[in-house]
Amino acid sequence: MPVNQKIKVAVDGVVFGYTSKDGLLILLIKRDVTPFKGDWALPGGLVLDEESLEDAIYRELKEETGVQINYLEQLYSFGKPGRDPRNRVVSITYYGLVKPDGLMLNAGTDAGDARWFNVKNMPELAFDHRDIVSVALKRLQSKIVYEPIGFELLDEKFPFSELEKLYMAVLDRPIDRRNFKKKVSKFGFLIETNEKQALETAGRPGNLFCFDQEKYFQLKKDGINFEI
Amino acid sequence: MPVNQKIKVAVDGVVFGYTSKDGLLILLIKRDVTPFKGDWALPGGLVLDEESLEDAIYRELKEETGVQINYLEQLYSFGKPGRDPRNRVVSITYYGLVKPDGLMLNAGTDAGDARWFNVKNMPELAFDHRDIVSVALKRLQSKIVYEPIGFELLDEKFPFSELEKLYMAVLDRPIDRRNFKKKVSKFGFLIETNEKQALETAGRPGNLFCFDQEKYFQLKKDGINFEI
Repeated sequence: MPVNQKIKVAVDGVVFGYTSKDGLLILLIKRDVTPFKGDWALPGGLVLDEESLEDAIYRELKEETGVQINYLEQLYSFGKPGRDPRNRVVSITYYGLVKPDGLMLNAGTDAGDARWFNVKNMPELAFDHRDIVSVALKRLQSKIVYEPIGFELLDEKFPFSELEKLYMAVLDRPIDRRNFKKKVSKFGFLIETNEKQALETAGRPGNLFCFDQEKYFQLKKDGINFEI
Repeated sequence: MPVNQKIKVAVDGVVFGYTSKDGLLILLIKRDVTPFKGDWALPGGLVLDEESLEDAIYRELKEETGVQINYLEQLYSFGKPGRDPRNRVVSITYYGLVKPDGLMLNAGTDAGDARWFNVKNMPELAFDHRDIVSVALKRLQSKIVYEPIGFELLDEKFPFSELEKLYMAVLDRPIDRRNFKKKVSKFGFLIETNEKQALETAGRPGNLFCFDQEKYFQLKKDGINFEI
């Protein structure tokens, strides 16, 4: 066992946000330390000797952005020599999707600022963080084909068009709306309420929908086959 | 940046093998060093300072088992404090599926022996390697639902029943054979040849099949929705 291994272990988090107004967002911090001082980057940092990888990512997110997030999934580990100019650093990355409304951003420790950016309008990122974001986006896009999403992101009651918008924002392309509605109905994770949408423009108001939570989480566990 | 981080970085490999005679196999080594000396474990070891994570896993597999494997995918990173009694070790794990025929096993370095075991008949494993195998098996089972498998594992020409057997071995359950055949035909990644199977028992010999490689790799890239 080479006792003098010089590799460090870090965690980085790709936190996606979604609002129907702003679309798909990503949480970035402005680095307040060298290297890449002043550049935008994913929140993250070195793992402490005694903490689990999961505890490390939640701690870093809280320290650098002020947000407390309860659920992230492990994404991929990035370890190419040279990806950090200081030391060899292997980063174990995590990703997740949250509702930014009500999350107060509050930069701290190594971060001078913390902000949401639209994924289509990100600044240059430090290190290989742009690659990490690409992998996370691909994972998210492939995931929504075999798991329902939306419960954590939409209001309790929402017009059906909001779910369509969410899928289009994540997939970054138009969807076949008729087919989409048929498939969603078939899976049965939505309940149509009798309440009508309050319309800001003229037109026939549609009914509002809500999630059938039991069905939703069962399907999340079992998986679906959702070609859109 | 806590310069004195004491965490080490290792790689471990879950190499599944498949033969129609032996079913789904896993490649294990017998540890020749403490801790867990004499116990079976996944091949793997610490990453060298200058090598990539991928180079590290291929090197460890070659050193400890003698096999040269060209393609493994990253599985998951395991980093719970205490998983290794010596140091805090984060293991970045890889998995893949190979054809064991013709692979000569040849234990070396930290391994006193290297052998294939049926996944349903594994010995006790060192560290948290049993958990790693469980995660790899689940990943493999979920993967074959959205990607074709078999090209690297079956003979160039094979009776259709061989593909069924492979899916049943990986899924560890019976499949609806009529439905399976219909779905496979629909995806079109198999070509039915005019050659007949040489039968060892009485009965009507079926035609042999081979993979339409172009279609196969296109579907592997694009993904399928293969409820079996």
